[in-house]
This record gives sequence, structure tokens and C-alpha cells, in this order.
Amino acid sequence: MQRTCVIMAGGSGERFWPVSRKAYPKQLLALTDSGKTMIAEAIERISPLISYRDIFIVTSEILLAPIRAALPEFPPENIIAEPAKRNTAPCLALAAAIISARYTEIALQDISMAVLTADHAVAPAEEFRKTVDIALHYAEKAGRLTTIGIVPTRPETGYGYIETASKTEVNTPAEVIRFCEKPDIVTARRFLESGNFYWNSGMFFWRLDVFIDEITVAMPLYSEKIAELTQAYSKSNKMALEASEPSARECFAAFPDISIDYGLMERSRKTSVVPAGFSWDDVGSWDALDRLRVADKSGNIIEGNSVAIDNKHSIIINKSSDMTAAVIGTENIAVIVTDDAVLVCPKDKVQDVKKAVAALREKGEEKYL
Amino acid sequence: MQRTCVIMAGGSGERFWPVSRKAYPKQLLALTDSGKTMIAEAIERISPLISYRDIFIVTSEILLAPIRAALPEFPPENIIAEPAKRNTAPCLALAAAIISARYTEIALQDISMAVLTADHAVAPAEEFRKTVDIALHYAEKAGRLTTIGIVPTRPETGYGYIETASKTEVNTPAEVIRFCEKPDIVTARRFLESGNFYWNSGMFFWRLDVFIDEITVAMPLYSEKIAELTQAYSKSNKMALEASEPSARECFAAFPDISIDYGLMERSRKTSVVPAGFSWDDVGSWDALDRLRVADKSGNIIEGNSVAIDNKHSIIINKSSDMTAAVIGTENIAVIVTDDAVLVCPKDKVQDVKKAVAALREKGEEKYL
Repeated sequence: MQRTCVIMAGGSGERFWPVSRKAYPKQLLALTDSGKTMIAEAIERISPLISYRDIFIVTSEILLAPIRAALPEFPPENIIAEPAKRNTAPCLALAAAIISARYTEIALQDISMAVLTADHAVAPAEEFRKTVDIALHYAEKAGRLTTIGIVPTRPETGYGYIETASKTEVNTPAEVIRFCEKPDIVTARRFLESGNFYWNSGMFFWRLDVFIDEITVAMPLYSEKIAELTQAYSKSNKMALEASEPSARECFAAFPDISIDYGLMERSRKTSVVPAGFSWDDVGSWDALDRLRVADKSGNIIEGNSVAIDNKHSIIINKSSDMTAAVIGTENIAVIVTDDAVLVCPKDKVQDVKKAVAALREKGEEKYL
Repeated sequence: MQRTCVIMAGGSGERFWPVSRKAYPKQLLALTDSGKTMIAEAIERISPLISYRDIFIVTSEILLAPIRAALPEFPPENIIAEPAKRNTAPCLALAAAIISARYTEIALQDISMAVLTADHAVAPAEEFRKTVDIALHYAEKAGRLTTIGIVPTRPETGYGYIETASKTEVNTPAEVIRFCEKPDIVTARRFLESGNFYWNSGMFFWRLDVFIDEITVAMPLYSEKIAELTQAYSKSNKMALEASEPSARECFAAFPDISIDYGLMERSRKTSVVPAGFSWDDVGSWDALDRLRVADKSGNIIEGNSVAIDNKHSIIINKSSDMTAAVIGTENIAVIVTDDAVLVCPKDKVQDVKKAVAALREKGEEKYL
């Protein structure tokens, strides 16, 4: 079995504004205590199981150069730009086509694909690889669309959930009853108590033949499109995978904007889940730093040049070497400073950073985005 | 009677950091809705009563050039630098000497002096001039060290108080029983209820002969020192009042560091107070903007380029044209942004800005001060 890995790294990460920018999104930030970018961590984490040669990073055109620059040791031809901005279903169809074109001598049923994310926090790495190995092995052997479910630790309303028939041991595949959209808090509490609900990690494992068969059942257009894209990328030399093939661009742009969860996973009857033996965080907004970093004795997370006096449970990040930040007497506040922007927001409102980004866009202040 | 005015403008105004800086303190800021600097407002306010020629601004050496630049129409030779950093008693002794030297043909008992501040908010100006005129006239006629007392409107613990024998009508001189230092909140409430306590405005009115006599009774050193300084400044040409006279520098440096309240007013038995017919604010810290400016309908005071979403009763000042500030969901917070610094602080802790300034000094980050 030829194992491959696809890392989706096209996200724009507006929730980490003002540090994240259009050409410098979350996956390129060092958000954990390791000091490494999220995407470097993601590749380092999987590479003992799947080597660089067989890992494909799919990103947007604007991020192609920054990601290549951030990963100097990674083969540049394996970092691929989507020819247009689309959701995860077209992205993974494109990945399937590119992999089909790259491994021409190997039959589709002998190629498996691990779909991972570039901007989530995972620990410990060994336990992550153990679960991935089990999920991949199960997907290869049983021919199932397999996902990793995270054992929930709080009634989170920001994640999708996966239901199984009964509580399942970690690292043990189980059939999926249904995928549930983000619940309200009452439902989330019920999910947490039930024991047979898992957070949808956004990681998927399948054989190429099973993926193409199942996505074609769900969305008949895909069969023909994937064949067309495979054809287009077969003609390209490796570096041209960047999207220079006009036929590929046109073909890809015709995909409707649909997520892999909604377009494939929720519709297929061949879905399984492996409960994770590791801890996971989607690093969705600034308050995630509270879970990812070690706070000082007052509960503050402080980075960069600042004068912080009498604060409690605050996040004070100064990314500028020119600016100084003085933060005094705050509680549960996030203060983020860059060379050209300042964000001040209570920690429980950091989701609203997107509103600020939208407002700046509306004011025509693109230079800050 | 030759009326003169002395405006003390040597303050460093650390409490308005990061906008106020060593060479750009509070008196040079435009803090009210008028858009004018505090010192320009102070001069404009008094000039219908005392013309520019007879107004003397005493400041520090570092502020001499910035203040001259901020007041292009004001006679530069009337803006004088103290030869060393000292408290208000030496400052006013110096002013007395300079005025004695300037008006050589006029006897000391025929010169009166109105001592005003450069960085307080006062309104309305006509009422201010009315009270000043009454206080000056009383000081001239009765030969008393006269001050203006502000009718208190809240149990303020940040101001000194002046006690009179009984409740007094505004614009009516009364004898001072005692000067009280900043009270605790219980005492401040009692002062407010009593009706015969006034805030010490820091404005003083006296004839030059009475001032020199009384300060010599309180501090015998002063008589000789003022004579020496008068001598030194008599020899100087007008522009040399900047402090180029070595003998003046040496003489001035020998003054102990003492305030006019403590050194003279609290010790003299010839003190009177005129309750003010105007409203007054010492503009002591960022939260004063709540009293000096008109807030928006959510109670926010917002200035400069910012994205402010869902804030209540916050002060958001962005003085930089390069930085953008996004402030979301805050309540009662002050966020101040300049080209090189950010301050974030709850409004009820803005007094602690001095702690941040001290911390920066301690870290050797003078460039931010």
C-alpha cells in the first residue's frame, strides 16, 4: 500500500488578526510554546510515519511562496496552490487527482491518503501517530472513509460532533451513526455526558478508489472532474503543479463551494471513526493560547516587549520590536500588538476579531489585513 | 497697580503617557474638545485681563523650545526656563525676581502677580476672569496671599482642600482657616458635606512686597536669594532669561525642593480664599477625558483611526496615523496608541500609568518616555 498524506493549508486565519494576515495566516504562526510554525509542527509530527516525498500540502496561490519559504527542507513541488478559492471537497478532489497523476504506476486501490490539518495543536506526537496509523490501516483494509474523533473534554459549541452507536475505546474503529453540526450549549452538554459523541477533528483517511467511488455517489460531477484534473496534472512537469495548467484552472473553478463534511462524509454510508488517543485543539482564536501555553503565576501569557503590571489571566502579545506595550490592571483581556496594529478585546469576545477584520475591509483599509 | 501673571508650565505630565513625553507633556496636549493645547487655552483665557507683555511662563529647560514653538504669537523672552528642576516655591521666587528685574521703575507694592497653571481645564472663561479679577483686586487692596478655592462637586481624594470659617459665597474673599492635604474618602465626604471646604486650585494672587515679606517670614533664606536672583536677571538682556546667567543658575540650584503650599501658604497667617464662580478640573489622568469631552451614545470617547465595536464607557485614543487600533467588547477601559507605544488600562486604574513610566525608566527604555 502506498501511503500519502495531504495537509490542507489554505486557511486565512482571520481570527488571529492582527498577527495573522492574508499572506501570513495561522498555519505560519508560532502559537505554541515550541516556537515553531503550526505547519512545520504538522509536518514534523507526521513525517516519522509518512516521508516528505509522499506528503502534499495544498494551499492558496497567495500562500504558495510564504509556505515554501517557511519549509526550506520540504520538496517545493509537493506544495501546491489551488487554482481558485474553494471549500474542502474540491480541495481534496484536486489532491486525489494530483496523487493519481504522480503515482501513475500504482493502482488507486493501492494508494491511501491521510488528510491532516496544518493549524491544529496536537499532543503527544507519538500518540497522534499511533491513532493515525490505526485509522489509515483500517481505511486501507476495510475500505471505509475513516475519520479521527476527539474525546470531548468540555461542552464545546464551536465544533462539529460525530456520533457512534455506543461509547468506544480510543484507537478502536467504530461505525459513524451521524455527523452533527455545531450544537447549542444544552445539546453540547448532552453530547459530553452521553460518551458516544466525538469532536470532528477534520482529519480523514481513505483509499483513493474508495474516496472517488464514494464522492461520485454523493456528487456525480466529481468522477469526471477528478479524471479531467488527473489528465491535466499528468501533462505538467512537477513544478507546474502550481496551477499553470489552464485546463486545470478552468476545471477546478467549476466545482461548487462545498465542504468535505457536508458533501461527502454526511452522505456516505461507509464512514467510520477512530477515537483519538491524543489531545487536540483547533486553535480557533486568541484564547486558545490559554490551553497551548504555560501561563505565569498570575495566569497571564506574556510575549514580547511589554510592561505588564497587576494583570490577571490576560494575554499580552507584542510582536513588534519597535512598539512598547504597557498593560496595567487588566483581567481576562487580550492585548495583541504588531508593527502597525493593536487589538484589545476581552478573552471571551475574541471570536469577534472577525468583525474587526470585516470592518477594516469595509473601510478599505486592506493594508492592515 | 502693575498686574502681572505667572503661568507655571514645568510639569512633566507622566500620567498622560504614552501621548505625553518628556519634551511633550500635558500642557502641550490638546485634551479638551477645543483642539487647542492646554497652555494656549490658559493664555487665551487670561489675556483679556492681562496682556501678553505682562504674562510670564516659567518652564523647564527641556520644554523651553517646545513651548515657544507652540505659542508663536507669544513674546519668546517671556517664556523662561528654570535653571534647575525645583518645586513651586523656588519657581515662584524666581518669577518674583524676574518680574522685579523687568519692572525696575515700579515699586514692589505696586506690582501684583496672578499665579496660574498651564494644564487645568476651566470653564466658562468669563466667569474665570471674573473670579481672578476679584482675587487680584483683593490681594492688591488687602495685602493678602489670596488663592482661588473650587466649590467641590464630589468627595475627591486626589486634591488638597482649603477650609474657611463658614460657607462663603462665590467670588467673595474669606480668611483661610487651614490648608488640608489630600484626605481619605471618609474625610473627603465630610469636607463635601460641610460646605466650608474648597479644592485648592493651585492659583495664587499677591502683591510682590507681600509675597517677599511672607515667604521670608516662612523661609528666611528666600529674601537674600530673591535679591540675588533679581540682581542676576537685571544684568541679563531679555532673551538671556533662559538661564544663561551662571550666577542665577548657582543661586537657584541652592533652593530646597519645597512646594508653595507647604513652604508658604500653610505657614502664613495672611491667607485668603475666593470661592470660584467657574468649574475646574486638574486633568490629572486619562479618565479626566470623561469630564472634558462629549462621549458617544455608548459612553465612549473615541479619537483617531480605530475600529471600535461593542464598547461601553471606554476611552480609545489613537494618535498614530500609521497604526490601526481594533477595540472590541470592552467596558471602562482606556486604550491609548501612539507611533511607538500602547497603553491598555481600566479607567479606574489610570493613576497607575506612572508605574508603567517608572518601569520603563527602570528597564532603560528612555526612548519611550
